[in-house]
Amino acid sequence: MEEIEHLKTRLADVVHLNHAAAVLGWDQQVNMPPGGAPARAEQLATLSRLAHEKFTAEETGRLVEAAAAQVDGLDYDSDAAALVRVVKHDYELATRVPAALVAELARLTSQAHEVWAKARAEADFAAFVPMLERILDLKRQEAEALGYQERMYDALLDQYEPNMKTADVERLFDELRVELVPFVAQVFANLDAVDDSPVHKKYDIARQAEFGLKVIERIGYDMARGRQDKSVHPFTTEFSIGDVRITTRYIEDWMPSALFGSIHEAGHAMYEQGSNPAFEGTFLAGGTSLGVHESQSRLWENVIGRSRAFWGVFYGDLQKLFPEQLGDVSLEAFYKAINAVTRSLIRVEADEVTYNLHIMLRFELEKDLLEGRLPVRDLRDAWNAKMEAYLGITPPDDGRHGVLQDVHWSSGLIGYFPTYSLGNFLSVQYWNKALQDVPSIPDDIARGEFGSLLGWLRENIHRHGRKYWPAELTERVTGEPIQVGPFLRYLKEKYTDIYGL
Amino acid sequence: MEEIEHLKTRLADVVHLNHAAAVLGWDQQVNMPPGGAPARAEQLATLSRLAHEKFTAEETGRLVEAAAAQVDGLDYDSDAAALVRVVKHDYELATRVPAALVAELARLTSQAHEVWAKARAEADFAAFVPMLERILDLKRQEAEALGYQERMYDALLDQYEPNMKTADVERLFDELRVELVPFVAQVFANLDAVDDSPVHKKYDIARQAEFGLKVIERIGYDMARGRQDKSVHPFTTEFSIGDVRITTRYIEDWMPSALFGSIHEAGHAMYEQGSNPAFEGTFLAGGTSLGVHESQSRLWENVIGRSRAFWGVFYGDLQKLFPEQLGDVSLEAFYKAINAVTRSLIRVEADEVTYNLHIMLRFELEKDLLEGRLPVRDLRDAWNAKMEAYLGITPPDDGRHGVLQDVHWSSGLIGYFPTYSLGNFLSVQYWNKALQDVPSIPDDIARGEFGSLLGWLRENIHRHGRKYWPAELTERVTGEPIQVGPFLRYLKEKYTDIYGL
Repeated sequence: MEEIEHLKTRLADVVHLNHAAAVLGWDQQVNMPPGGAPARAEQLATLSRLAHEKFTAEETGRLVEAAAAQVDGLDYDSDAAALVRVVKHDYELATRVPAALVAELARLTSQAHEVWAKARAEADFAAFVPMLERILDLKRQEAEALGYQERMYDALLDQYEPNMKTADVERLFDELRVELVPFVAQVFANLDAVDDSPVHKKYDIARQAEFGLKVIERIGYDMARGRQDKSVHPFTTEFSIGDVRITTRYIEDWMPSALFGSIHEAGHAMYEQGSNPAFEGTFLAGGTSLGVHESQSRLWENVIGRSRAFWGVFYGDLQKLFPEQLGDVSLEAFYKAINAVTRSLIRVEADEVTYNLHIMLRFELEKDLLEGRLPVRDLRDAWNAKMEAYLGITPPDDGRHGVLQDVHWSSGLIGYFPTYSLGNFLSVQYWNKALQDVPSIPDDIARGEFGSLLGWLRENIHRHGRKYWPAELTERVTGEPIQVGPFLRYLKEKYTDIYGL
Repeated sequence: MEEIEHLKTRLADVVHLNHAAAVLGWDQQVNMPPGGAPARAEQLATLSRLAHEKFTAEETGRLVEAAAAQVDGLDYDSDAAALVRVVKHDYELATRVPAALVAELARLTSQAHEVWAKARAEADFAAFVPMLERILDLKRQEAEALGYQERMYDALLDQYEPNMKTADVERLFDELRVELVPFVAQVFANLDAVDDSPVHKKYDIARQAEFGLKVIERIGYDMARGRQDKSVHPFTTEFSIGDVRITTRYIEDWMPSALFGSIHEAGHAMYEQGSNPAFEGTFLAGGTSLGVHESQSRLWENVIGRSRAFWGVFYGDLQKLFPEQLGDVSLEAFYKAINAVTRSLIRVEADEVTYNLHIMLRFELEKDLLEGRLPVRDLRDAWNAKMEAYLGITPPDDGRHGVLQDVHWSSGLIGYFPTYSLGNFLSVQYWNKALQDVPSIPDDIARGEFGSLLGWLRENIHRHGRKYWPAELTERVTGEPIQVGPFLRYLKEKYTDIYGL
């Protein structure tokens, strides 16, 4: 397999450059003194450019072709065939977009970030309009360069969720909308049934950190191959299978933010830590798509982390750590408080019930923007109309409560939002299948043993890395394509109980 | 100046790759979980190789030649001429050593490090002999490749102290030896005159850290362009002029270790922070040699940090922080304790008086080893004989108290040791000149104002970065070449007083 080895050697440079850039990016958000910013931007630009040059060089193309010829006839499931498949896919995408367009997008979005941050702070939608128009124009050029068969949005979506089509997402959201919108209205009519004041008391941040760390270690985040730090925006980043780090943000008077944020990031991190060690330094390490990645974080955060069984294990410890805040709060009251639904205006603060409506709204708007059915100047009104239709509320401002709240569009991330919901749908499908395969999981979790669930995830999902495309993986794991039904049933059952509907 | 700009652009990639490697190296020692080690070694090897390839490519040589033609006739002091001078020097050195030899040295020293660490732990000199023989063999090949006129050692010394010759160092050490050896004997005969027990009490590490940080900020280490972390071996590293970081190691029952270690590293860091901002991203940023670098760290650590005037400023605060340990220790007793001389066996723990004897010994041995006058198998005996001759003591073991104590030789660092002493000599020369230029400095320091000294260092040394070779810089600053006399006078005066000789 000489050709494969040549290809691997060449691509190891690309992987190392990208991982070096990831270290610099992590450091920038976790440690860097302010004076380091200008040079760091230059360093990151150089690393990205060198990685891109190395990867898109004709020599890489020749090695890919030679390796492809060599794996021809090999079993689809072999690592060698999978590696060539993945590299060929990435190479084609990377070489289709002209370097000049990549550079222009990088420049524009860096500029746009400043404009967006100011516009958001001042809740001044009009100030952001010309910027978003220019971004959409470049993203349309990018989509044309990438190519698509039916929908321009397909080309962008494919970058985050390979092979997923716009029409597939529309079908899933259509099914979600028809059941979820009336259910949300029903919950909203009964909001008084849950008191979330216990989680809004003051919780000492050092103790929050201590407890959160204990929880994520207990569920299986391997600290010998990871670490947790503080940052303004929580994220997971990997420098190798043996070094996958998470960050958390602490809010004194809203304890669930850090706690469930940590469990969420640990879910992402455990996926990365679970790649087959033989994939280290190759394109096969890591998650196969953003949707599958989000399924892991949401499974641990919500399906497990916000369950009664989970808190049956941990609540005593939490009460001991915060006797003043929780001494007289029952387990049941705490369980309800951490699952409280609110008339949420802000996506990142939204509960499990309303969260996907926020995503659906963004998906509908961004594809209309991209495909030219919605002029940017009408975006704010369209946003507010959908907020009213789906959630029955109108944002009080266009800034952090409204159309400017998310960073994504200013960063050129179009086609990214739906993967959050795909992850939510998949989390329940995978969970159901795990229960079917390993019926002891609920009892294990009730005893504080998370190994049987993590073992199932490792075996069925994590170890494969990028070996299978997301739809293939879901078929292999569950025998079915992605579906919204299981998620809806899970949600309705859980919240009908909590809200006594 | 188009050619210069082309050269700068190409070299910016090299600088960015090297700085990225520095970030990865810092992270490895400060943050990295153990699982990250294997991949990190690969990443660092890739970054170094890409930087080396880019720098030594023929295209760089062509750009250097074109730029050299362009600056021909420009003033020697112009930044453009200096840049070409420095790059040409580095390019020639980098292209002289064959890539195969560089790789072999990297492989061997990585192996040697393990062998050395084990031999040191087991105080087993014989186990390290074959390794050191192979290293010396490769270093001789390296010296031949680099080229030299008189002495093989010149070629290696030049890498750390450009243009300095072995004969120059020998002359300095000859002068030092004749005066220092008898003086040390004199101090040793009076060791009872100083009680160092106050600094060997237990000092809470968090408070040590708090106080140390206050001190280094006060003397001028800019925390908006730096930060301090913990690591096993203290070091300074720079990712840009705007991001220069230090690390410190804390020992509970030997407080001076962290305190003076922090001031020492801050001295290095202030030199890096003081480069002309116009040099950012070019080969002109940073220190001009290890010797000049060490002059800055030792000036702050010893000449300033271990002076009566300095503790007149800080001692009250330190006593308040550690009332139990220092409440009944007078300023004078504390001043003596932090300057206590010991029959030191270990270089890194040595006091100001004996330190340079340790360096002289290593310099004499390593040039004899390299130039073939001392067989490796006889090194231990030669070491012990010199310890007896210079310090009047024989090491009780060959491990951490003896010939295997330092990491340098196992890392292939031959020619590096003398720069520690050059730094000590220069620190006093620069200090004397600063006092002559700005007579208010002692009064300023007594009032806790360090700006006049730092300003003088910035103006005369720091801002120039690598613009002048070390000997040129010293001539420019002091009007003289490097000398050992001022250092000897400073030492004798200080310690005659402390020990009441």
